[in-house]
Amino acid sequence: MEKKEVLYEGKAKIIFETSEPGYLWVYFKDDTTAFDGLKKELLDDKGVLNNHISSIFFEFLGANGIPTHYEKLLDERSMLVKRLEIIPVEVIMRNIAAGSMSKRLGIPEGTNLKHPVMEYCLKDDALHDPMLNIHHIYALELADKEEMENIQEQAFRINEMLVPYLEEKGIALVDFKLEFGRHPREGIILGDEISPDSCRLWDLASGNKMDKDRFRRDLGGVTEAYREVLKRLKKDES
Amino acid sequence: MEKKEVLYEGKAKIIFETSEPGYLWVYFKDDTTAFDGLKKELLDDKGVLNNHISSIFFEFLGANGIPTHYEKLLDERSMLVKRLEIIPVEVIMRNIAAGSMSKRLGIPEGTNLKHPVMEYCLKDDALHDPMLNIHHIYALELADKEEMENIQEQAFRINEMLVPYLEEKGIALVDFKLEFGRHPREGIILGDEISPDSCRLWDLASGNKMDKDRFRRDLGGVTEAYREVLKRLKKDES
Repeated sequence: MEKKEVLYEGKAKIIFETSEPGYLWVYFKDDTTAFDGLKKELLDDKGVLNNHISSIFFEFLGANGIPTHYEKLLDERSMLVKRLEIIPVEVIMRNIAAGSMSKRLGIPEGTNLKHPVMEYCLKDDALHDPMLNIHHIYALELADKEEMENIQEQAFRINEMLVPYLEEKGIALVDFKLEFGRHPREGIILGDEISPDSCRLWDLASGNKMDKDRFRRDLGGVTEAYREVLKRLKKDES
Repeated sequence: MEKKEVLYEGKAKIIFETSEPGYLWVYFKDDTTAFDGLKKELLDDKGVLNNHISSIFFEFLGANGIPTHYEKLLDERSMLVKRLEIIPVEVIMRNIAAGSMSKRLGIPEGTNLKHPVMEYCLKDDALHDPMLNIHHIYALELADKEEMENIQEQAFRINEMLVPYLEEKGIALVDFKLEFGRHPREGIILGDEISPDSCRLWDLASGNKMDKDRFRRDLGGVTEAYREVLKRLKKDES
């Protein structure tokens, strides 16, 4: 497997073409950004940690019937994934009110939601990732009804699996972001990453944040928290 | 029918109890507000016009199988309505991009939407009526699934009826806001008002605005535009 030219460089990852058609090389950077890229820092090892954390989540989901783009780890900072046509909609699943939801709706952070909440946002930094509903998605022709029903079903199933999986490891899954894409043979499958950059994870015992909010809110100990997440995920692997 | 004490005074209407249980007296004021009440003006006759325009819309919808709270006109500025427990969710139906949707999603005002878009907002001035999706409504327990499916179905049916009804009168129905409430015997029915305060109406021939955007955007001729809407609605009544 050879790394070829850069297909796309994002805020936290670089995507390379590979010698194998239909597959991409994902390289996780140490760059950490927030607020549409206004806040930026290099955090040693963050890319290494997110690469490994994402791979564990993808393997867990794949083993439980959720198709994902993940193929295998390539090196400390890189994984091989299937090439997808990404649907430009961020899917956010929430179990506990926090962040933008708390602010927008006046719900105190930490409030348990009586039902999981799914939100959609348009992937568009210039517009600050505005919230979408299903009708906006159809009107903008970002995806069709069959695709969105598939995505909604997968997102709720993923949440139902990840909540107890993380709870066993002493972590509350507050909320997380997913991205889906179209694969020529496999249809709609899960893409992007699942990491403390894209999830809110709170230590069940202490309530301490173990995710990117440590960076957003200047709480310090960012990579230490990510490292602890990886340690817990690895604990019962063998 | 006697007007009794004030139950609630809003920005554009006063609701009175009546001598008949289960019925309310709605008085349409000339007060016109925008931007969460920050911009305010008295516009002569606006209340009279909205009372009559709303009554015509409610009668049209009632005659076409949509249950509404409207009973009858009481005087120039007042109508009798059934008392509802209002669900604190504004339902917005859009056929053409305009206003907040154009700004949020970067869609030029006047763009025809390929599918009608329904949006929900929480009725909460202090939070600036934040957008909701169906999962927020369930998590906040504002309404249940059966109620919301009923509301969604009614909202799309109302849109399907009002678009051609207004087109015949030379008016494009750009978007409009609905409110629904619970009636002890009739279930979920349409409440509030339907008027140029709550709709965007554009003259089909000229594209001129015939609604509250004339006030919001200081275009002048607000009541003249509302009067023209009423004139066109009354044209083929007999």
